[in-house]
Amino acid sequence: MTRNPILLHDFQCQPAAYHSDQGAILEWIAAAHAQAEITLQKPATDEARETITRRLRKLVLRFGCSTDRIAYRNSALEDFTHTDWDRMRIFQLNQYPSGKPCGERSRFYSEISGAAFEQFYAGETEPPAVLIHVTCTGYVSPSGAQRLVANRDWGRSTEVIHAYHMGCYASMPAIRMAAGFVERGKARVDIVHTELCTLHMDPSQHMPEQLVVQTLFADGLIRYTVSRTEDGASLPKGLELIATREEIVPGTGEAMTWMVSDFGMQMTLSRKVPDYIRAGLGPFLDSLAASAELKAGQLFDTAIFAIHPGGPRIIDEIGEHLGLRPDQIQASNTVLGNYGNMSSATLPHVWKAILEDEAVPSGTLIVSLAFGPGLTIAGAILRKSG
Amino acid sequence: MTRNPILLHDFQCQPAAYHSDQGAILEWIAAAHAQAEITLQKPATDEARETITRRLRKLVLRFGCSTDRIAYRNSALEDFTHTDWDRMRIFQLNQYPSGKPCGERSRFYSEISGAAFEQFYAGETEPPAVLIHVTCTGYVSPSGAQRLVANRDWGRSTEVIHAYHMGCYASMPAIRMAAGFVERGKARVDIVHTELCTLHMDPSQHMPEQLVVQTLFADGLIRYTVSRTEDGASLPKGLELIATREEIVPGTGEAMTWMVSDFGMQMTLSRKVPDYIRAGLGPFLDSLAASAELKAGQLFDTAIFAIHPGGPRIIDEIGEHLGLRPDQIQASNTVLGNYGNMSSATLPHVWKAILEDEAVPSGTLIVSLAFGPGLTIAGAILRKSG
Repeated sequence: MTRNPILLHDFQCQPAAYHSDQGAILEWIAAAHAQAEITLQKPATDEARETITRRLRKLVLRFGCSTDRIAYRNSALEDFTHTDWDRMRIFQLNQYPSGKPCGERSRFYSEISGAAFEQFYAGETEPPAVLIHVTCTGYVSPSGAQRLVANRDWGRSTEVIHAYHMGCYASMPAIRMAAGFVERGKARVDIVHTELCTLHMDPSQHMPEQLVVQTLFADGLIRYTVSRTEDGASLPKGLELIATREEIVPGTGEAMTWMVSDFGMQMTLSRKVPDYIRAGLGPFLDSLAASAELKAGQLFDTAIFAIHPGGPRIIDEIGEHLGLRPDQIQASNTVLGNYGNMSSATLPHVWKAILEDEAVPSGTLIVSLAFGPGLTIAGAILRKSG
Repeated sequence: MTRNPILLHDFQCQPAAYHSDQGAILEWIAAAHAQAEITLQKPATDEARETITRRLRKLVLRFGCSTDRIAYRNSALEDFTHTDWDRMRIFQLNQYPSGKPCGERSRFYSEISGAAFEQFYAGETEPPAVLIHVTCTGYVSPSGAQRLVANRDWGRSTEVIHAYHMGCYASMPAIRMAAGFVERGKARVDIVHTELCTLHMDPSQHMPEQLVVQTLFADGLIRYTVSRTEDGASLPKGLELIATREEIVPGTGEAMTWMVSDFGMQMTLSRKVPDYIRAGLGPFLDSLAASAELKAGQLFDTAIFAIHPGGPRIIDEIGEHLGLRPDQIQASNTVLGNYGNMSSATLPHVWKAILEDEAVPSGTLIVSLAFGPGLTIAGAILRKSG
């Protein structure tokens, strides 16, 4: 029995409230690190303060993601638009060198995530059968998804699922879950990502890996729908789900970590991650292609690669490793350049860009790849339709 | 096309390391609240200290869950076995009146959850196709599930899913997810709950609702498998999945909350929750029964009710409201009495008890009910087999 394809469609994104160019953000982060250190060290002289400020600016500009990789990033926090530490919501660094502790970050997350759900569904009258909320940056119940359903009185039509704490690759388990719910008869599954990564910066942490993370991550809000296409209809505009796969690379448990800590959530990232990914990628792609009855080699010439920008260079490194042309990874690089790494919201932004790009013809295969703690490699093969 | 039933089976539980009787725990909690208040107030005289101690003991014994509801609770924390505040892992209340902040709780959670996964799979040679980790009490990546898969080199066979932050009812979305993965061709989906609720107590919070919560919750670790039964085989011992349903009761958003706060996770619980549940339960059960092609009335006479003990009286209140006999809610009351409220791990303990109870014949329907933030009512109809 052949069944109609399952489609990802109707992508909508919201930019977070504050749009900044990366140059300005790098200067802000340099000033924040200096202020955190000054609050900790309490230097007695102006000269000592200036030495700290100069040293930390140099470090941030040396290790931070440069403006040729990322041009802009968005944040829901007004904090990043000024350096008046007294009126910061989170980064009141003259009192709290790490920013405020977890509770205030949770409250802010709850406000912003709740407002994002209301805005995504402002014009919507039909409730989805399932609403999957994806995040790894804020854990508050009732969530924005639950409050939307309660406010709209959709509680007897819509089941809410939290797909939390799966890091940057979480769009993949979310679409696997969604496809499962569709198989079990749910007509329409909506997926909403609300990632507020910038909320979890700790400016008292000056290690190079922390500077990479802090200058790479940004906030992202995106919604899309997963459903089975109707009988007899020609395929509408969307991304047909062909295959999914997820692997954990052995012996890489400590390569990337993400946990609730004292001052928001904390990430660690080993410099070896790109090596681990390159080593695991070959067998991973062979198996992913095989589950779509393809050979990986067929994909390297013709598919578009939607690659999660886990680090500033990973898209280009994978492109080079697999021998891809620049046009095959262009959408990934454009999203990185315009938005930074929005954790799990990033890949859906790349999918949206590919779907809207008229230069990518219907029928094009899209190989999606993302990475996260585990070390996990997650992937999917999609096909553009409509 | 009729398909073979999906079965929940092979339940295994681990008691958390420290088993305490509720009377001893109530005295510990009284001492902890007194110490927290003494650390905050710094009373100058022995008399003032004794007044605080007496007042808080009275409050804890008045509002806490009494020993006639809960006889025993387990915790992974040694802290609860003594009152030498200096050598506490988390509840060093002579320095931290709320216990230590989030980071240390995450590290402890990670150790215990990791060890629990290792123990659950100590004798296992066959990897599951999907491993769903359920918790609302610890958010650390790599999780115990991811580390197990990495350590065993199961990374190319097993996909890990985190079903986090869905509160006490999370076994329901977990089995819905599992059933979806089975529909998509996964042969065996394992679900593991590691809930360390006792880690998130805050002894500086003396409000009656907090005293109820702190004297109700306990730690719970349980594992089970979801798979489709094989062709031609008679049904093995297990619980056949007949129907699932989840609803959010409108206008109840603030009735129950659960979020990451400064000192662990914090819960609020309105006294109106039992009223809201009673009001929502009738239509919920009608719809749940209808999706199994039954009438709710048929269930009230014959089914066993596996009811999550969200509060100390909710099982009996629902039993009374629906006109159930004591034997229909006995397994739920027994689990509450022997283990307390282990959040999402509770209902699976009730299922295990029903499955092992030879007085419950094969073919018996089991109506499962659980509650959580939203306010969410989640339910399932299962049928005992084998």
